Amino acid sequence: VKNPKVTKLVEKLREISYIDSANTLMEWDMEVYMPKKGAESRSQIMGYLAELSHKMFVSFGFERILNSAIAELKKGVLDENEAIIVRRTADDFEQEKKLPSEFVRECAELYSRAYTIWVDAKAKSDFSLFLPSLKRIVELERKRAEYFGYVSSPYDALLDLYEPKAKAEELSSLFDDQKAFLVPFIAKITGSARYASMDRKLLNRPCDLRKQYRFSKRTVRQMGFNFEEGRMDASPHPFTTMIHANDHRLTTRYQRHDVLGQALMSMIHEAGHGIYDQGLPPEHYGTPLSEFISMGIHESQSRIWENVVGRSLPFWKYLYPRFQKAFRPAFDDISLDAFYCHLNYAQPSLIRVDADEVTYNLHVILRFELERGLIEGTLKVEDLPELWNAKMKEYFGLEVPNDAHGVLQDVHWSGGSFGYFPTYALGNLYAAQLFDAAKKQIPGLFKQIENGQFAEFKEWLRINIHQHGRRYSPQELIWRATGESPSSSHFIDYLKTKYTEIYEF
Amino acid sequence: VKNPKVTKLVEKLREISYIDSANTLMEWDMEVYMPKKGAESRSQIMGYLAELSHKMFVSFGFERILNSAIAELKKGVLDENEAIIVRRTADDFEQEKKLPSEFVRECAELYSRAYTIWVDAKAKSDFSLFLPSLKRIVELERKRAEYFGYVSSPYDALLDLYEPKAKAEELSSLFDDQKAFLVPFIAKITGSARYASMDRKLLNRPCDLRKQYRFSKRTVRQMGFNFEEGRMDASPHPFTTMIHANDHRLTTRYQRHDVLGQALMSMIHEAGHGIYDQGLPPEHYGTPLSEFISMGIHESQSRIWENVVGRSLPFWKYLYPRFQKAFRPAFDDISLDAFYCHLNYAQPSLIRVDADEVTYNLHVILRFELERGLIEGTLKVEDLPELWNAKMKEYFGLEVPNDAHGVLQDVHWSGGSFGYFPTYALGNLYAAQLFDAAKKQIPGLFKQIENGQFAEFKEWLRINIHQHGRRYSPQELIWRATGESPSSSHFIDYLKTKYTEIYEF
Repeated sequence: VKNPKVTKLVEKLREISYIDSANTLMEWDMEVYMPKKGAESRSQIMGYLAELSHKMFVSFGFERILNSAIAELKKGVLDENEAIIVRRTADDFEQEKKLPSEFVRECAELYSRAYTIWVDAKAKSDFSLFLPSLKRIVELERKRAEYFGYVSSPYDALLDLYEPKAKAEELSSLFDDQKAFLVPFIAKITGSARYASMDRKLLNRPCDLRKQYRFSKRTVRQMGFNFEEGRMDASPHPFTTMIHANDHRLTTRYQRHDVLGQALMSMIHEAGHGIYDQGLPPEHYGTPLSEFISMGIHESQSRIWENVVGRSLPFWKYLYPRFQKAFRPAFDDISLDAFYCHLNYAQPSLIRVDADEVTYNLHVILRFELERGLIEGTLKVEDLPELWNAKMKEYFGLEVPNDAHGVLQDVHWSGGSFGYFPTYALGNLYAAQLFDAAKKQIPGLFKQIENGQFAEFKEWLRINIHQHGRRYSPQELIWRATGESPSSSHFIDYLKTKYTEIYEF
Repeated sequence: VKNPKVTKLVEKLREISYIDSANTLMEWDMEVYMPKKGAESRSQIMGYLAELSHKMFVSFGFERILNSAIAELKKGVLDENEAIIVRRTADDFEQEKKLPSEFVRECAELYSRAYTIWVDAKAKSDFSLFLPSLKRIVELERKRAEYFGYVSSPYDALLDLYEPKAKAEELSSLFDDQKAFLVPFIAKITGSARYASMDRKLLNRPCDLRKQYRFSKRTVRQMGFNFEEGRMDASPHPFTTMIHANDHRLTTRYQRHDVLGQALMSMIHEAGHGIYDQGLPPEHYGTPLSEFISMGIHESQSRIWENVVGRSLPFWKYLYPRFQKAFRPAFDDISLDAFYCHLNYAQPSLIRVDADEVTYNLHVILRFELERGLIEGTLKVEDLPELWNAKMKEYFGLEVPNDAHGVLQDVHWSGGSFGYFPTYALGNLYAAQLFDAAKKQIPGLFKQIENGQFAEFKEWLRINIHQHGRRYSPQELIWRATGESPSSSHFIDYLKTKYTEIYEF
């Protein structure tokens, strides 16, 4: 960035990012290390910082600086990077200006408190404890949609925050298609002889928690997550966060009898996110060039590592002997083949984050339908547990035993994230499509994976996805990387091939 | 606080504290968990936040609000709490306004970077790596003294930041007195038969680091540090920090062969600080009523726990059987009497933080003389290692083998803290004096300590010291708690009685 007007703009954007970075650390710390009684004071501070950041962004001073930069853009004197910074910032400004400061502050304070309330309600498995907060959250998110404006559904306004230009109606038909594929496909799996012969608890061997931590860390390092600019900690819900340039953090949770489901595979998932973040150009910290483009694209990066690579046979040809050794003798009696099949055990289940890649999108579809209803005003918050449980019955044939295993399982709504869930399903679609392209462009990719060599694959992702920040729209980015518009066919083909082989039908 | 003008003032003070709290967390995290490569970006952010906080405090807007509150004070309509908030804030404002924003920012950025450089220089034991930073730091601190103004010595201006109203000349004569007492007293100790018979390595038994962590934590909890609003972590240099109301953090370091010197006694020391912080009224967060009065008073709270209580025979009558059990069989062959004597082993040594309570103040005096010289311009930074080593020879008869064990050992100068060291010595004086008062006022205090009951003692400290925040000056606070002005006689009597008994002369 050389243009003086854009330089000035970038300086201001950085100052705002400094506040956001401090707030991000406060948030990370709140979920990882903060003592319990610090919650109230922490909420106030986080609320204040969010408001301050918002005020700085929508201030007259900032607007003047932005307008000077926009004038340069119109004169056509900016280079490509400068133009993107100005264009995206102008879009963000239009959007942000729509929200009053008090609204932003109320949200930040409420959501910080609601998080603690949700943790408690989930621990006690009692939705009624969380109900008053969630009612207020839904009110605020409906209000947010009104502030932003929309054409057909208020839900579109929220969706746009996570997946620019996505629409509820389009997702709805996309998801109906997937439901149509998934329900019979899952029936085929659960009806197979192989499925009947499998032991769903086979991989739940007791493993020392510190060994789980060390093995996960080693694996994630080998994938290419850089611990010189990153960390790994424990928290109730796994997440990835960028504190600021060169400081990226992953968290997961550990359970003695679930090294794969809770620790390792979650960590591979989060490291996929972290590697994306680390691939954003740090020299553009604070500007749209160093920001991720969409949640769907972000999720594609975690899913491509967790599922497409991390649950593939080549990956485990490499890792399994090391895994066996690390947890000796827990897995000594399990062959690679049996391990691989059971790692890809697909079954209807209650908990989204534990769900396999076949049933996962059905969990998302359930949430999408419910939250869309809440935001469009066709469903009531009070009715959520009942509706949730009915859909679980309809889609999975499962009874929900309690709220902790049902409507209270996810952190998202406590943070006001409506419109976020669908991006998980998009992530799966993008991941399959990107991997097909990488396979074509990297000779011997599977061989590399079999040898534990991930550098070229990581570099392919960096060049095609990470380095671009918000340069292109999600659709354009996928098109540039793969030569096609986003489509679900790669994902469906991927599931068909892989699971037909595993379940031998 | 009811007066509307003061309420407005408190609101503004809180907002500034929100920024400071975020910055404090950034700093804590930098020393405890930040990935290495995050340092540069972190420095920038911390510099910006420090400047922002400073700007908010010295802004016209704040001045107007402060002046309205001062007008109320002059009208005589404020209650005692309100009056103190206004008076102390007015003093701070006068002081702060003297520093230009750019100066504050330069300091914050430099000191954050200098910390990393110091860590590296210390690891490599090479003063020359740290020299350029330290030269700039001394320049800035001399400049700070000029901004603040002073009567006789620029060092007084800096001292005032840590111990309000203390003067270099007074300290100098106080310290010369102590030198006069300490040097022959130490000679008496090291000349005694008991000293000759003692094994300075007796307590350096190997202890599992996690057991050290757990035992330290249990001890600190029993003292009364509240972990529902606090934490305990590891860092290269032990410290205590208050993130915000109800969030207080201690750190220490662990070495396998030094559970007492490095982990436990440091932790008891830091917990003394932490208990003071937790005793400041959280409802006054952000105002002078919830701030500590001076570093000397703060240090008295750590010293009273670490030394006066934590190295006393009654304390170990309680703790020693538990300690032996926790680290079984490492200390099984050491009697309580031998343990107690060796825990109070007094000897000339190189490292201040490892020094015993007899020799400790000599370490402080050495630093005081050097840093006073640097700030008054009579010494040059380049000459520090040589001067340091010469004084170590003169006061302790010791050769300094390298910079890491000499001039590079302390973190303080890397953070521009000149005038801080003397408060450690004041802390020792106050601690002895406060304990003598507590002993008179709490019947059976030693008996309580023998039974592991610390609640009444902690409450005595809370009522007499902690709850007052910056209500009284250090001198007045000591007078109110003990009925006397601060004096060194309690400390000298304490050392004489205790060590004459231990060393049998």
